[in-house]
Amino acid sequence: MKLGFIGIGKMGAGIARNLLRAGHSVAVYNRTPEKAKALTQDGATMAASPAEAARDSDAVMTMLPDDHAVEDVAFGEGGIASAMKPGAVHVSHSTIGVALAKKLSKWHEQRGHGYISAPVFGRPEAAEAKKLVVVAAGPAQLLEKARPLFDAIGRRTFVVGADASEANVVKLCGNFMIASMLEAFSEAFATTAKSGVNRQDFLEIISELFGSPVYGNYGAAIANEKFEPAGFALKLGLKDIRLVLEAAAVEAVPMPLASLLRDQFISAVAHGQQDLDWSSLSQVSARSASL
Amino acid sequence: MKLGFIGIGKMGAGIARNLLRAGHSVAVYNRTPEKAKALTQDGATMAASPAEAARDSDAVMTMLPDDHAVEDVAFGEGGIASAMKPGAVHVSHSTIGVALAKKLSKWHEQRGHGYISAPVFGRPEAAEAKKLVVVAAGPAQLLEKARPLFDAIGRRTFVVGADASEANVVKLCGNFMIASMLEAFSEAFATTAKSGVNRQDFLEIISELFGSPVYGNYGAAIANEKFEPAGFALKLGLKDIRLVLEAAAVEAVPMPLASLLRDQFISAVAHGQQDLDWSSLSQVSARSASL
Amino acid sequence: MKLGFIGIGKMGAGIARNLLRAGHSVAVYNRTPEKAKALTQDGATMAASPAEAARDSDAVMTMLPDDHAVEDVAFGEGGIASAMKPGAVHVSHSTIGVALAKKLSKWHEQRGHGYISAPVFGRPEAAEAKKLVVVAAGPAQLLEKARPLFDAIGRRTFVVGADASEANVVKLCGNFMIASMLEAFSEAFATTAKSGVNRQDFLEIISELFGSPVYGNYGAAIANEKFEPAGFALKLGLKDIRLVLEAAAVEAVPMPLASLLRDQFISAVAHGQQDLDWSSLSQVSARSASL
Amino acid sequence: MKLGFIGIGKMGAGIARNLLRAGHSVAVYNRTPEKAKALTQDGATMAASPAEAARDSDAVMTMLPDDHAVEDVAFGEGGIASAMKPGAVHVSHSTIGVALAKKLSKWHEQRGHGYISAPVFGRPEAAEAKKLVVVAAGPAQLLEKARPLFDAIGRRTFVVGADASEANVVKLCGNFMIASMLEAFSEAFATTAKSGVNRQDFLEIISELFGSPVYGNYGAAIANEKFEPAGFALKLGLKDIRLVLEAAAVEAVPMPLASLLRDQFISAVAHGQQDLDWSSLSQVSARSASL
Repeated sequence: MKLGFIGIGKMGAGIARNLLRAGHSVAVYNRTPEKAKALTQDGATMAASPAEAARDSDAVMTMLPDDHAVEDVAFGEGGIASAMKPGAVHVSHSTIGVALAKKLSKWHEQRGHGYISAPVFGRPEAAEAKKLVVVAAGPAQLLEKARPLFDAIGRRTFVVGADASEANVVKLCGNFMIASMLEAFSEAFATTAKSGVNRQDFLEIISELFGSPVYGNYGAAIANEKFEPAGFALKLGLKDIRLVLEAAAVEAVPMPLASLLRDQFISAVAHGQQDLDWSSLSQVSARSASL
Repeated sequence: MKLGFIGIGKMGAGIARNLLRAGHSVAVYNRTPEKAKALTQDGATMAASPAEAARDSDAVMTMLPDDHAVEDVAFGEGGIASAMKPGAVHVSHSTIGVALAKKLSKWHEQRGHGYISAPVFGRPEAAEAKKLVVVAAGPAQLLEKARPLFDAIGRRTFVVGADASEANVVKLCGNFMIASMLEAFSEAFATTAKSGVNRQDFLEIISELFGSPVYGNYGAAIANEKFEPAGFALKLGLKDIRLVLEAAAVEAVPMPLASLLRDQFISAVAHGQQDLDWSSLSQVSARSASL
Repeated sequence: MKLGFIGIGKMGAGIARNLLRAGHSVAVYNRTPEKAKALTQDGATMAASPAEAARDSDAVMTMLPDDHAVEDVAFGEGGIASAMKPGAVHVSHSTIGVALAKKLSKWHEQRGHGYISAPVFGRPEAAEAKKLVVVAAGPAQLLEKARPLFDAIGRRTFVVGADASEANVVKLCGNFMIASMLEAFSEAFATTAKSGVNRQDFLEIISELFGSPVYGNYGAAIANEKFEPAGFALKLGLKDIRLVLEAAAVEAVPMPLASLLRDQFISAVAHGQQDLDWSSLSQVSARSASL
Repeated sequence: MKLGFIGIGKMGAGIARNLLRAGHSVAVYNRTPEKAKALTQDGATMAASPAEAARDSDAVMTMLPDDHAVEDVAFGEGGIASAMKPGAVHVSHSTIGVALAKKLSKWHEQRGHGYISAPVFGRPEAAEAKKLVVVAAGPAQLLEKARPLFDAIGRRTFVVGADASEANVVKLCGNFMIASMLEAFSEAFATTAKSGVNRQDFLEIISELFGSPVYGNYGAAIANEKFEPAGFALKLGLKDIRLVLEAAAVEAVPMPLASLLRDQFISAVAHGQQDLDWSSLSQVSARSASL
């Protein structure tokens, strides 16, 4: 397929490379062109603007840090919507809010384009290794068309509904569940450490108990206080908790654990941790216990 | 070894059976003798009191529901302490509080006995199948002596310190982490369900994301609202959260997530859920969202 | 002075009437003209649009339910900004967010107008009786000019700073403190009631303890479960808690009590209480305790 | 009446003095006798033990820091119960738990004594000035007998029920409501201060809004960060929040705001604030916001 890809950051680079490896033709755009350039060695062509990446493409992917960036790239000046051909599909891999996903669906439909939300779970290494978990939602015929693209970038794809925003609420809730684990680890490490238990011992036991690499990896980061480089920046974690709370509020669902996470992330930001990995959430509990 | 075993409930039965299978001689006692009787077919002898089970034993295990029961069986009238021979060891498998573990250590030492805390992770099926995870703490020479007993009942044993109560704080924090997962699932299911996402879809995605049987099993219980029979009764979950909060308070560690769990468990009890499985915690979020 | 007044609801009617009583000339506008009409008996003239109310006025007051309404009336099509004369002042009495107040300051300044935030504390009866507490912020010379207007509508005026949005953060924090009292009352009533204490007894004691009419009035509403008619609708309370959380987040201040309030208000909305008085927050605690 | 009075601390001294002023004969006991001695100038006699103070007395008052002290003084060795004459009444002014009050009622009844809970609201100055608010509960005929004693020490007495522990739950809930106000002030001061609002301005506005001396006094302590000398030590505040949570748990009432307070008080203790006034709770919010 002929593809455009906007947003060549840590995640986007791996995804785009796997699309190229699968034989697709990919025009890439990144605000900082250096990052995109590396992909030309894998066969990508450079686009000078989102619109140029979108022109003549069957599908345009976006992988951007937040709602603002996605809205701007899609419907701002020189955005992809201004150049997409009739029937082309915008595939949004970014972790964006439910409200924006609903708006994108409507706006693209009004212009004769398709829209799919296809956020992914996985860190940059997983993106590179084609091991992402893709959660997709949107009209059935568009999902069918996009299927080979998802197969090219992840280890497994889940289709969750015809309303694109359903994929976003699932992705946000998934990140909420990971953040909840971070908070649980943080409080448990504070209590066991102050009680004299060795951090590695506690980590090993909890890893054995849950038998999950997610627990193993994040638990190790916390036990060893290794928060740099950030696999996922704390400020992005705060953004996602904010978005899940907004999505829940629209449906009148209280999420007290998400509210607690929001407060802890804000305290972390107040102490300058915004660019550390979000597992540094543990420092909030540590400070609170004067550890 | 010559063993006494007090408390033949769902967990105790499996543990005692595996001790018998490993060739140990076991005198069993249970307040309701019927439950203990079944074990005589596996070679156990029946004791008429905790003291009788303890007499002449090298080690006495207790597997009882709460602090009160353990304190009573150990140091109450007709308790094991009144009959243990010099140098015999009390091995407490129950999930008890840190404060009680410290008292038991001291009291037994004053009488010339040993004391080890060796709480276990795993449901009744795991106890039966010798797949428990044992967390042990106490004086090194006692732990060495007890090692074959742990090997007989679990898939893996972790030694966490010379102070017996350290094993209890680890066990309590482990249960706290499982309960945290239950609350995270509860809130996420409420939000995704109200947003139109199919419960099985969400369950599958989160299971894939964490790759943990703990998530798979508890997530399925919540998705299917199957809370009976109780693998672990909600009232016991509340007890453990209370105990972890007490242990943390002694060390001056705030645990806001544990506090949230305590409130949610209390609301569950107010609605009559005390004997359902603790995964029924999800009904608190559901009611709160008017789901 | 020659004034325009937009928003003749329960609060606006009383405020506008007191401006008329003080001898000012007031052109009133309300989306539903019937409500505004009553004021013509007090000497007001009817305006057909916000712009018309603003034309030739020295100051234009807005008293509207939320940020969206204020932004629309100020800078939407036919809004006051399109008609205000050079040097005229927009006085915003509404409880709006800090971010919007900052935008209004900037936008008006760019057009050669002044802007003041002057939110008020008090219920409709207080507005009618000229007993409001006015919290004002903005450039000093504008505040001086507006002083007689504040004197005409309230019992006391506090000036809190040169940046208009400071008045808004104070107003939001004041409402947060009242809502905190509602939650404290709710939990205390649930516990004392289930313990057998008579509600009127508890109310009397707490009223004596605090010696505050705010405690007396809201406590009585909760004790008697009298939530209609709504002096201040619960959905507006939720809006204000949302706005105070946003204002705090911008400054990186965690407000865990405000987060708790947000969750409780959302649960109230999930149970259909949005149009009841916000003191009906007590029903959330009551349900949670299965009272 | 012939009275015994145990516990001559900051509060007890004022109460005992007012009983003497009202013409009662009072035998006083304090663990540190110096504090009790001063009262002999007002006509008190010194007792060498709680039992001695209780012998021949019609009523014995206790005003002690916590449950442990009250239980010990009442039923420990040399306690008042060993010396009280038949029909004598134990009047407990201390802020103790609901569970202990129930036990004291039962134990005294079994020995032919009466028991009344009569906790008080007010700081040491109020105790000295006969301005306490007394909350009393117990059997009606005992309350009638004790009425003159309450009139001698407070500005107003509330009778809340025939079950003595009801007075304790009311007192605990009252302290919970004051602590809730402290937390609300703490978060609001953090947000307004970081937003550039002057602390004295915010204090004045909130004082005007609530019109309550409780808000005025505590707000001033927080605004001026004056936490010494402690009118009420933070560690006692933590104790009371713990007791209210226990009382609520017995009735299956979740109190999420009380849980939040417990966590904040624990964090304060972790930072060494246990002996500061409990209004220093504000430092927890300040630290959390990196203020």
